[in-house]
Amino acid sequence: MTARTAAPVPTLGVGMVGYSFMGAVHSQAWRTAGRFFDLPMAPEMVALCGRDATAVAAAASRFGWAGHETDWKALLTRDDIHLVDVCTPGDTHAEIAIAALEAGKHVMCEKPLANSVAEAVEMVQAAEAAQARGVRSMVAFNYRRIPAVALARKLVVEGRIGTVRHVRAQYLQDWIVDPEFPLVWRLQKDKAGSGALGDVGAHVIDLAQHVTGLSISSVSGLTTTFITERPLPAQGPTTGLTASAAEGAPTTGTVTVDDAALFITRFEGGAVGSFEATRFATGRKNTIRLEVNGSEGSLVFDFEFMNELQFHDRNEDPDTAGFRRIIVTEPSHPYVGAWWPPGHGLGYEHTFTHEVVDLVTAIGRGQDPTPSFADGLQVQTVLAAVERSAAEGTWQDVVVPS
Amino acid sequence: MTARTAAPVPTLGVGMVGYSFMGAVHSQAWRTAGRFFDLPMAPEMVALCGRDATAVAAAASRFGWAGHETDWKALLTRDDIHLVDVCTPGDTHAEIAIAALEAGKHVMCEKPLANSVAEAVEMVQAAEAAQARGVRSMVAFNYRRIPAVALARKLVVEGRIGTVRHVRAQYLQDWIVDPEFPLVWRLQKDKAGSGALGDVGAHVIDLAQHVTGLSISSVSGLTTTFITERPLPAQGPTTGLTASAAEGAPTTGTVTVDDAALFITRFEGGAVGSFEATRFATGRKNTIRLEVNGSEGSLVFDFEFMNELQFHDRNEDPDTAGFRRIIVTEPSHPYVGAWWPPGHGLGYEHTFTHEVVDLVTAIGRGQDPTPSFADGLQVQTVLAAVERSAAEGTWQDVVVPS
Amino acid sequence: MTARTAAPVPTLGVGMVGYSFMGAVHSQAWRTAGRFFDLPMAPEMVALCGRDATAVAAAASRFGWAGHETDWKALLTRDDIHLVDVCTPGDTHAEIAIAALEAGKHVMCEKPLANSVAEAVEMVQAAEAAQARGVRSMVAFNYRRIPAVALARKLVVEGRIGTVRHVRAQYLQDWIVDPEFPLVWRLQKDKAGSGALGDVGAHVIDLAQHVTGLSISSVSGLTTTFITERPLPAQGPTTGLTASAAEGAPTTGTVTVDDAALFITRFEGGAVGSFEATRFATGRKNTIRLEVNGSEGSLVFDFEFMNELQFHDRNEDPDTAGFRRIIVTEPSHPYVGAWWPPGHGLGYEHTFTHEVVDLVTAIGRGQDPTPSFADGLQVQTVLAAVERSAAEGTWQDVVVPS
Amino acid sequence: MTARTAAPVPTLGVGMVGYSFMGAVHSQAWRTAGRFFDLPMAPEMVALCGRDATAVAAAASRFGWAGHETDWKALLTRDDIHLVDVCTPGDTHAEIAIAALEAGKHVMCEKPLANSVAEAVEMVQAAEAAQARGVRSMVAFNYRRIPAVALARKLVVEGRIGTVRHVRAQYLQDWIVDPEFPLVWRLQKDKAGSGALGDVGAHVIDLAQHVTGLSISSVSGLTTTFITERPLPAQGPTTGLTASAAEGAPTTGTVTVDDAALFITRFEGGAVGSFEATRFATGRKNTIRLEVNGSEGSLVFDFEFMNELQFHDRNEDPDTAGFRRIIVTEPSHPYVGAWWPPGHGLGYEHTFTHEVVDLVTAIGRGQDPTPSFADGLQVQTVLAAVERSAAEGTWQDVVVPS
Repeated sequence: MTARTAAPVPTLGVGMVGYSFMGAVHSQAWRTAGRFFDLPMAPEMVALCGRDATAVAAAASRFGWAGHETDWKALLTRDDIHLVDVCTPGDTHAEIAIAALEAGKHVMCEKPLANSVAEAVEMVQAAEAAQARGVRSMVAFNYRRIPAVALARKLVVEGRIGTVRHVRAQYLQDWIVDPEFPLVWRLQKDKAGSGALGDVGAHVIDLAQHVTGLSISSVSGLTTTFITERPLPAQGPTTGLTASAAEGAPTTGTVTVDDAALFITRFEGGAVGSFEATRFATGRKNTIRLEVNGSEGSLVFDFEFMNELQFHDRNEDPDTAGFRRIIVTEPSHPYVGAWWPPGHGLGYEHTFTHEVVDLVTAIGRGQDPTPSFADGLQVQTVLAAVERSAAEGTWQDVVVPS
Repeated sequence: MTARTAAPVPTLGVGMVGYSFMGAVHSQAWRTAGRFFDLPMAPEMVALCGRDATAVAAAASRFGWAGHETDWKALLTRDDIHLVDVCTPGDTHAEIAIAALEAGKHVMCEKPLANSVAEAVEMVQAAEAAQARGVRSMVAFNYRRIPAVALARKLVVEGRIGTVRHVRAQYLQDWIVDPEFPLVWRLQKDKAGSGALGDVGAHVIDLAQHVTGLSISSVSGLTTTFITERPLPAQGPTTGLTASAAEGAPTTGTVTVDDAALFITRFEGGAVGSFEATRFATGRKNTIRLEVNGSEGSLVFDFEFMNELQFHDRNEDPDTAGFRRIIVTEPSHPYVGAWWPPGHGLGYEHTFTHEVVDLVTAIGRGQDPTPSFADGLQVQTVLAAVERSAAEGTWQDVVVPS
Repeated sequence: MTARTAAPVPTLGVGMVGYSFMGAVHSQAWRTAGRFFDLPMAPEMVALCGRDATAVAAAASRFGWAGHETDWKALLTRDDIHLVDVCTPGDTHAEIAIAALEAGKHVMCEKPLANSVAEAVEMVQAAEAAQARGVRSMVAFNYRRIPAVALARKLVVEGRIGTVRHVRAQYLQDWIVDPEFPLVWRLQKDKAGSGALGDVGAHVIDLAQHVTGLSISSVSGLTTTFITERPLPAQGPTTGLTASAAEGAPTTGTVTVDDAALFITRFEGGAVGSFEATRFATGRKNTIRLEVNGSEGSLVFDFEFMNELQFHDRNEDPDTAGFRRIIVTEPSHPYVGAWWPPGHGLGYEHTFTHEVVDLVTAIGRGQDPTPSFADGLQVQTVLAAVERSAAEGTWQDVVVPS
Repeated sequence: MTARTAAPVPTLGVGMVGYSFMGAVHSQAWRTAGRFFDLPMAPEMVALCGRDATAVAAAASRFGWAGHETDWKALLTRDDIHLVDVCTPGDTHAEIAIAALEAGKHVMCEKPLANSVAEAVEMVQAAEAAQARGVRSMVAFNYRRIPAVALARKLVVEGRIGTVRHVRAQYLQDWIVDPEFPLVWRLQKDKAGSGALGDVGAHVIDLAQHVTGLSISSVSGLTTTFITERPLPAQGPTTGLTASAAEGAPTTGTVTVDDAALFITRFEGGAVGSFEATRFATGRKNTIRLEVNGSEGSLVFDFEFMNELQFHDRNEDPDTAGFRRIIVTEPSHPYVGAWWPPGHGLGYEHTFTHEVVDLVTAIGRGQDPTPSFADGLQVQTVLAAVERSAAEGTWQDVVVPS
């Protein structure tokens, strides 16, 4: 909040691929991070990349990028670009990220890391090879950077909830409840890899494992597709979440991904979990809930109240024990000191700003940011185990390929 | 609320077995139902039965029973007793209920109906045989009788939420998080049949099926016991939920039931569900939550707010759509007209009063009350399928024996 | 919850006047108190009194009273009646209560104590005279007996919130928002004394002063009547809250009480308060809220969540400080041990049961119950000061006549 | 969210005075508005002004201002500055704003408009004179620009709540509960004009009047200062909200403003209101609440849940009526379409971005933005009436000087 005299720092040239929803919010993060946080490098928004020259030029201007490209490979040959931010659909992550790493560019890659475990393994190999050359990579699980979530992690690390017993994690949306909602790319397996499972389930898998510090060891799950045929979008599958139903669409197409995925899990150490990811929770717009019960206390996070964390301490006097609604806007709370006085909440986009802050800080310090591509692979492996379990009707161990 | 002139109605003599937690609350229900509701028969609290003569005499006096017995079989031979209310641990349900039905007594039996499917099958056979003679039976899933739950069922029947897609059901307690909590009867398989699964999981299985009107067709579940050895109670396994740790207990015993059970389900018609029953949700005292998402709307119930129902109507103008917090205390709401003005909430015990009302009304009208023993068997079958699934690691169909 | 062997105790014969809303709920309290609490005297429901012989006989039967009377004076001459419970409209409180006290009967009197300060002064004088003869009296501010409110008081006494700075108290209803709602007795000054101010404002004045332990020293207030003409009820002003609009009522009448009263206050010791009582808070059925902010902490109570108390402790680590939602259902919480296990909430009527418990306990122990008639007079004096302030447009000191 | 091709638009050069809390958040708004909204002019952050050359230079660099000045008068002579944004303490608003308007600069001025009615009158006169020359002015009541508040206003305009009866408005903070918190400028009458009343009370006065469309016609209020002596800050009164207690401060000073202000109001048309502004609501960090009850419905806003609006519609079927929690993140909601998909909430700073959007849009279209300086004067007049009422102990009419 207070202006600080910043010593000159080296520039970090950024090129970004993709300019839809994720591109817009990443742009805001790149523009904003250095205004509130002291960064060891100064991000420079060098070029935005997209296939449609007119559209990408307009987006670059709108979002504050100095230039634009229509071929992502062009980013890799530019000396003024040191980092590539991959905001495209999942089917292109592996190709772009691996090439960028090989070209010596740091990479931030949207989640899920890839559309398959096999791709993710290759990406990890590329990341590890790059790391040896000082080239960094990170997968963008932005919800880790909510102050309330970071506080939850801190309380777990401090032992405030003791041994974890229960995890309850849900990511609930409802944007395709209408059967007339068209067949956008997120509903097509070849583009998106999976449906609710990979798109939003990946987030809560990461959240649950990150906050508890525990890995899921086995899963039993189901996936389902409630509406299997949908109208084709007016001009073929569109991008974005909010495409309106194509009027007069002549044909329909088949939904090839899950509408919802439910799974129960065992964690290393004996905790158990219940997970759900769905696009059919009518009335739930973007509800992300995580509850963790431990031997000494409990934590509850709900993204509808993103500036809050609920905490129950079992060691309190029973007369006054209860879930506390911590408003996570105190100067001592993670990330918060850089922003506003207590009680003045942050929003969705701040999670991305914090992500950029952590990434740039790690690069500037010569450290590896987290979550790593390996972390992304681990989540991908859980997703694959859920799909396998759903297909075979049995429990599946989560075995991360090496 | 208003006094009404009641025409003389026949007496319904009641004998009750058990006088612990359930006995206390059933007594309150028998005492109270006729004070607020017009019943077709007048319940008379004839005799309370328990093995310890001194204790049961004191309890009878305290709870308002005219007499007492020390052998439940004595209730069956008394002409002034027309109904037997079974409030004992699950291992005795079958014997008492079947004998009572055969003796021509109506039976209300606490849940879960039995400790095994086999027992439940026998009870259903006895109930059906008795029914032919005009003898009625009911299993006591009291939470159905919360006005908010009854309203939820009504809205489903009216089509307000359309085709059900998702069920989320949790019953969370924390009364045995402390490892020093002793090995009470509810933690022993021979007495209790199962742990959290049968004790509280049975409630949410019934709630979910009742509200949606859909049966669970298959399950995949896990059960776990976090603390396997506990101190023995001072004088052997005690009754009740609130026994304090036995000081200086010389030995420990093995917990033979589940501490927690998690399962995912498929319902007939394509809906999917996620269920959890646990005694290890630190800070959750008696949290019962049910969320149902349908094609046209959603419903949310939370027992911590038992006088409320949340309802989302998808067909509202998006500008003003949202989950409504319905305070279920209007005269037109189920059961509520008999009580207080709007906004004056009911409590836990009222669910039992309503249960008595529904039971006595059915008997008086010569109808079969619900839920029937067959409904109880169906829940028992789901419980067994969860246990089998947990043991075998595969999905299990719910096949109710006939 | 557990049956206890009760030693024989003396009988306390009760006669009650009035059998509408308050009569129904008081009856439930008299029937129930001894079933859950160990009382030093055994209440006996001897006679119910009302002017209409047929109706009162039916009510007596329905509510569980052994007999009935049509003249309240008859109660005073009966030897088997030791206590008179006054549940009539406010215009008769003084006459009945004073006569009963003079006849040597203990008295419980509904709130507000009287319809004027002058009447209340006479009642206090009668109460003090009676007290010298061992005859007890209490005014029925039932909301004090909510466990969460009793806990709030306990925390204040223990110093957990320090010096009180702010009180925020609201009693919000909406039952006369409809202009067609008829002119029931509660809307007529000669019967009811005042409108929202005395009916529900009295409750929050008592609550605020009781919880903080501080008296209001001066007030500035306004009263307003939004709808001044209403249809007459079909058969003259009726009793109860829920009379439906009289169809075809030929004439209308003038509302002579306030629809809403707002006032700000100074308390002894420097705290300040904001109060509101209204019947026009659309959507608020019976919302009672009290927030107290002190130098060391804060408390929040909301009757819509009557089994909860929110507590903020300023001395907590800021990282984890927050309002705690205490579910006031632990065995150690006030009144709760007599009822159900943790998490099984109570309802509106339990406040009256607790009132009876406290009253009978005091009488049995030869002590004066609280709140006394003098406490009722003090509240009446605050009400009068608000009315005077509203009339004169200036601050008014609260000076209790002696 | 989607990039749009923007036609070239004229530049709007901005100079801003002040770089503390408000300066930081205004800078973020100026940087961000054009990235998400189509503006008819392109804001250019020309110069930041502050007295300390080193500090202001650092702030300008940090916040993204092209240049800096140490004398605000310098801004007025620069041709590249078309608008002056006044973010200083209240004692300088009048001088700067009037001079800027006279110099032909558009002005945005932080609230409260001035430290006295007299100053505010002069500012209105200057604004009206400037308006005749096409020079625009606005007072910065940012909370109007919360989407949920804008939706509330929209529903009132549409008649969804009918005739307003009740307003309940609170602005609760607790940042000076600690007696060791130092005597910052906000606690000094000569700098700040008043305490909680003007600082945060002004916000809720504006909110309440804006949402209802009704003016406060008379008030009765009290103000109080709980802690009258405080340590002096280490280096004289500091800026900002979060100064920590000066260790070892040799002397103390007197608090010359109110810690809290409570007032009740009458609105034109018969509605009544209850207002509270305080810095002593322990545990309340920045709680802003507004409830409006009308003849047809009710609205509730709470800044702790800034992405929500609660709405009750009295004309609903009573069976399903209830306060709806509208998550105000739909594309059709005010301001929201420019941001993220449904369910992805905004934060505090967005209110300022929206403020800039509305201001620049009005200037670009040759219209007067709202709220005007006259609106600011009206709020100032209410503040003065509250202070006068508190001093004299009587009701005061709100008479806006012309």
